Amino acid sequence: MSMNSFGHLFRVTTWGESHGPALGATVDGCPPGVAVDEAMLQHWLDKRKPGQNKFTTQRREPDAVRILSGVFEGQTTGTPIQLMIENTDQRSKDYSEIAEKFRPGHADITYWQKYGIRDYRGGGRSSARETAARVAAGGVARAALDALVPGIAITGYMVQIGPHKVDRDRFDAAQIEQNPFWTPDAVAATEWAEYLDGLRKSGNSVGAVVEVVAKGLPAGLGAPIYGKLDTDLAAAMMSINAVKGVEIGEGMAAAELTGEENADEIFMGNDGQPVYSSNHAGGILGGISTGQDVVVRFAVKPTSSILKTRQTITKSGDASEIITKGRHDPCVGIRAVPVGEAMMACVLLDHVLLHRGQIGGNRGAIG
Amino acid sequence: MSMNSFGHLFRVTTWGESHGPALGATVDGCPPGVAVDEAMLQHWLDKRKPGQNKFTTQRREPDAVRILSGVFEGQTTGTPIQLMIENTDQRSKDYSEIAEKFRPGHADITYWQKYGIRDYRGGGRSSARETAARVAAGGVARAALDALVPGIAITGYMVQIGPHKVDRDRFDAAQIEQNPFWTPDAVAATEWAEYLDGLRKSGNSVGAVVEVVAKGLPAGLGAPIYGKLDTDLAAAMMSINAVKGVEIGEGMAAAELTGEENADEIFMGNDGQPVYSSNHAGGILGGISTGQDVVVRFAVKPTSSILKTRQTITKSGDASEIITKGRHDPCVGIRAVPVGEAMMACVLLDHVLLHRGQIGGNRGAIG
Amino acid sequence: MSMNSFGHLFRVTTWGESHGPALGATVDGCPPGVAVDEAMLQHWLDKRKPGQNKFTTQRREPDAVRILSGVFEGQTTGTPIQLMIENTDQRSKDYSEIAEKFRPGHADITYWQKYGIRDYRGGGRSSARETAARVAAGGVARAALDALVPGIAITGYMVQIGPHKVDRDRFDAAQIEQNPFWTPDAVAATEWAEYLDGLRKSGNSVGAVVEVVAKGLPAGLGAPIYGKLDTDLAAAMMSINAVKGVEIGEGMAAAELTGEENADEIFMGNDGQPVYSSNHAGGILGGISTGQDVVVRFAVKPTSSILKTRQTITKSGDASEIITKGRHDPCVGIRAVPVGEAMMACVLLDHVLLHRGQIGGNRGAIG
Amino acid sequence: MSMNSFGHLFRVTTWGESHGPALGATVDGCPPGVAVDEAMLQHWLDKRKPGQNKFTTQRREPDAVRILSGVFEGQTTGTPIQLMIENTDQRSKDYSEIAEKFRPGHADITYWQKYGIRDYRGGGRSSARETAARVAAGGVARAALDALVPGIAITGYMVQIGPHKVDRDRFDAAQIEQNPFWTPDAVAATEWAEYLDGLRKSGNSVGAVVEVVAKGLPAGLGAPIYGKLDTDLAAAMMSINAVKGVEIGEGMAAAELTGEENADEIFMGNDGQPVYSSNHAGGILGGISTGQDVVVRFAVKPTSSILKTRQTITKSGDASEIITKGRHDPCVGIRAVPVGEAMMACVLLDHVLLHRGQIGGNRGAIG
Repeated sequence: MSMNSFGHLFRVTTWGESHGPALGATVDGCPPGVAVDEAMLQHWLDKRKPGQNKFTTQRREPDAVRILSGVFEGQTTGTPIQLMIENTDQRSKDYSEIAEKFRPGHADITYWQKYGIRDYRGGGRSSARETAARVAAGGVARAALDALVPGIAITGYMVQIGPHKVDRDRFDAAQIEQNPFWTPDAVAATEWAEYLDGLRKSGNSVGAVVEVVAKGLPAGLGAPIYGKLDTDLAAAMMSINAVKGVEIGEGMAAAELTGEENADEIFMGNDGQPVYSSNHAGGILGGISTGQDVVVRFAVKPTSSILKTRQTITKSGDASEIITKGRHDPCVGIRAVPVGEAMMACVLLDHVLLHRGQIGGNRGAIG
Repeated sequence: MSMNSFGHLFRVTTWGESHGPALGATVDGCPPGVAVDEAMLQHWLDKRKPGQNKFTTQRREPDAVRILSGVFEGQTTGTPIQLMIENTDQRSKDYSEIAEKFRPGHADITYWQKYGIRDYRGGGRSSARETAARVAAGGVARAALDALVPGIAITGYMVQIGPHKVDRDRFDAAQIEQNPFWTPDAVAATEWAEYLDGLRKSGNSVGAVVEVVAKGLPAGLGAPIYGKLDTDLAAAMMSINAVKGVEIGEGMAAAELTGEENADEIFMGNDGQPVYSSNHAGGILGGISTGQDVVVRFAVKPTSSILKTRQTITKSGDASEIITKGRHDPCVGIRAVPVGEAMMACVLLDHVLLHRGQIGGNRGAIG
Repeated sequence: MSMNSFGHLFRVTTWGESHGPALGATVDGCPPGVAVDEAMLQHWLDKRKPGQNKFTTQRREPDAVRILSGVFEGQTTGTPIQLMIENTDQRSKDYSEIAEKFRPGHADITYWQKYGIRDYRGGGRSSARETAARVAAGGVARAALDALVPGIAITGYMVQIGPHKVDRDRFDAAQIEQNPFWTPDAVAATEWAEYLDGLRKSGNSVGAVVEVVAKGLPAGLGAPIYGKLDTDLAAAMMSINAVKGVEIGEGMAAAELTGEENADEIFMGNDGQPVYSSNHAGGILGGISTGQDVVVRFAVKPTSSILKTRQTITKSGDASEIITKGRHDPCVGIRAVPVGEAMMACVLLDHVLLHRGQIGGNRGAIG
Repeated sequence: MSMNSFGHLFRVTTWGESHGPALGATVDGCPPGVAVDEAMLQHWLDKRKPGQNKFTTQRREPDAVRILSGVFEGQTTGTPIQLMIENTDQRSKDYSEIAEKFRPGHADITYWQKYGIRDYRGGGRSSARETAARVAAGGVARAALDALVPGIAITGYMVQIGPHKVDRDRFDAAQIEQNPFWTPDAVAATEWAEYLDGLRKSGNSVGAVVEVVAKGLPAGLGAPIYGKLDTDLAAAMMSINAVKGVEIGEGMAAAELTGEENADEIFMGNDGQPVYSSNHAGGILGGISTGQDVVVRFAVKPTSSILKTRQTITKSGDASEIITKGRHDPCVGIRAVPVGEAMMACVLLDHVLLHRGQIGGNRGAIG
């Protein structure tokens, strides 16, 4: 089946290589009558766009998205939406060495072992450039969610870079757009800048942790047992390049809690909806949303393209060593923030549509 | 689509509630000619079976699996394999209170909010009993893997319970079958027994971390971009009841590594296959297996059915409190070990079949 | 993927062999709150049940269906519904010869060539007995449709047996339940009885054409381009054993019409809904329902198990001949009538749920 | 799920409207290492291209296909192949009237009723132009089939136009490329030209029957019960615009045969493969290929855009009449021939990959 697609009713198929003529996303299953235009999608792509500061790759391209189908007179028609982004700044020469050698920690070797052929230019299909298509598709998902779930808000931000975590007591949402790391902790932003600058100058890179939160969701989203909301979110985030771990709510730390500590107590709110004393569950119980904030975190490993010499082998199996020159992110986790938001938007829209289809949306009131 | 199914070519659909007449798994896409019988599957079910020691629920049932279709004269025929386990020890009366009240931290409330009706007996569909069907299906997957990938070995074990982690220096695979926690650290096993006994007596529960490792895999398994091996493993593990986090290789700790530290250096082995200086990647690069051990960890939250009083509400929305009597696991993570193994087996078989179908299995040699 | 499943949101997986312990259907995606019980499903199974008259196989079994999951206190819960039918009258000895020889016109040889193993008893998985599971699942679909689309009516009947067609001028729906052929033409029923009796006595068999009509559908059902309502109906009917052709509306005869003749003219009805001057389209335009009757026909080939001597080969490739003794249908098309109704019900429910999920059901009014 | 996609392992998603900037196909699951280039695909598109003679629409465009991804240095890489065809000759003004009125027999009204919005220009998504994307994707499928099943040949041709059928005794494959109808009967070609010219001048249109045959297939392709080879072929052909009926082998005529007549007798061939005395089955038994020619026929209804006045209604529900001016096919069935071939190629490749994945391709020898 389609291994380059995700989603059930709202289904996104991304295509394209880093240095081919173009890449994009085929978006199927978007409801009709949603206001969508290129400017709206460009807003999200610009957020992800490389070359905006010294902490992201200096590759510079407009990443301009074109809508080729599925939108008529400013509204979606319910037919497939084709989103295309042309590759304009390719500099293939930068990548000649990796045609023969495999970068340690990179997908070079496994793509070769699986397919026996690969477009090695800039990582080809395994390049983080593929995530531009996700962000464009996420823009469509956001537009549809705004129409179907008024008041929903999806926000991503960095909570850790290397060993340095944010101080939750300094959490200030207003700061997120004010620094190159999309972090809510202004103090951390200053410290990280210095830390990352040193790494960058030394030709090294580092990992990060991104958190994405969705507010304003209704209860009841998620399809047990194998289409749980957290199952789909885990798959969506783990499918992002370089992600090695995914957490919902307490995440791995849930192991350290007792049942007494972990059980979010339930009360009735003034609006007749249940409220909870805490949110260890990250807004999901039994794979279904509770109506609380949905909280997801994922860890991004450090960029494997670095200026440090590493031992490797060639396609012929000969021992060699490699230094990856060219333009790279000292912390690819930074650009993963808008990608995580996009994946959250796609998964949530999908489950809104699934719930509407299978349940009808008019059941399960309390009281 | 089928939200109670997982897998692409090897597809498992589980069905059944905790206190219905039976539960089971419909297994579709198993290759023909694989030797399978009920005793073979029962071996894995017995490993998961409750009531084996004081650290798991005292509910006692044989969990005897019957093969109703798809196996003829001891071999799979390539047609659907129906695996049925009858529920024999139900004691519905134990569960009468939760018909009206929602257990904090449990799926009671979200199932109600989504469906407007639920089989509340023993948690119904959201009960951990559903995992018995996964273990049975995993037994079929193991049998097929043994036939297709001779020498493959899948082993799960506990590495943390509450705040107490194993000491990796004391790792001894031979210990895993020797203690009620399936832990490779004999010293930890002793300490955990005392710790957990105290929790059990106080009517409390605690979380845990389970690690599952697959050895002897070929390189090349995994289907980028959205059917990556790690994506499917993350979804499979996150779909297990009570799981809140999933890690591949370094997992969340990858955030703290530099590119230099994280890049597993590559050399040629004597057998003409690549070997690596380390396995930070957990055996997966770009979503495709490297041939190293595939290493997955997941965190299981504490059981929410506890003897501690918690604040909650009723179906009518009235404030109330609840103490869950009855037979419960102080650490449901223990029984999650064979479940994690089963999910690993199903995902790996699925990707072996996918690779054979889409690539043909004869490409990508190095040297 | 699951090759024994059909449907998108309402997904049915059938399992089981003719002479195994049982067969059944795993029904996933049924909305919650639908009144379903075993008696309701048994009604449809009894209609299909063999041995009711001399024109169907004399194999006699109750074909009693059991609901093992997904229904609680008489209502569906939104979780998988497991429907099991035990095989009670098996007489394996009747089928010993076909273990070695392939019946011409039967799936014996292709199952062997594909799988290299087959449960040859009674045709195993390729037996028409599999359709009992479809009829049970169709009963669930009918119950859900009645709840979601009040007034919908699905009726199947025979319009041709061998060379003998019904006279449309004698069409009387009241006759359908009055004869062993479920034909609306009482005169044909009498003629067919004599004709078929002769064939039966001579040990021969014959084909038939079945028509299934759905009345009372809303406009707008169907999901272009590849999930069209007619596409899914064609697949559903062609998947029934022995079906070799499927028609929508005019069907193959559409080739003979001019554009002027074929274009069903459109007018407004008194109820503010469009009405049409004719229904050449069979209620479907561009893969989407028009609100007219949906009309599907399919041809069933003659039973290949006959008492006539035919040339064949053995598993060893030796020339041989075969006469299939045992209990067989002179016209398997008769029992295909309730099966066609069941497939229609499943496809329609699926598209009602899809439309509700992707469109929301509140668009596209005319005037 | 993706309603604009078809196929299991080889999955094609088409996108685009008749008068948007472009349309195309996203092709996922093509094996790596297959030689593919634009010229190879253009060959098949040119065969379908309109405006080649007076019997097809005079709309003239190059229909030039561009490969945007998935092919590197002339070979497929196993990643998604994006095929784009730009729309160059659009003349939107020709289509202004149908913005308000619904053409009888056309999808205009149902798209409006389903989506509440439609790109009415040239039929938008429901235009036969969408089939250009299928033909491009079919070209990729043909290339992969040639590599995997050497000697396979897929040929489509017209066997009926209006009431006029070919004479099977005059069947001459060499004639197919020699006339504008792709018919194997030279005499029919002459008669049809005169007949169709008269229809064209009167502003009318007519239906047709297309037959597509695949030679050189192995036995064993097809995935019972719901992914049968004939099931998937029926769905593929019924999904083509204007198709109202699909037949395999004897098709609807199977109803008139006795079991004795229908049973293709089996013998052993000199090459150790089974041979058959006839092919009533159309090369498929129990949904699995026998190794004989796979024979599929489908009926195409007449074009609904005609110069004859028909009664209809407007979007406002007012009575009206319509004459569709502009450039149309007097027999759209002609251009359906290469489309039918393309669908056959896609379905067969898909089942070759499925068989390889689930069975491994090395079982089921006879003798």
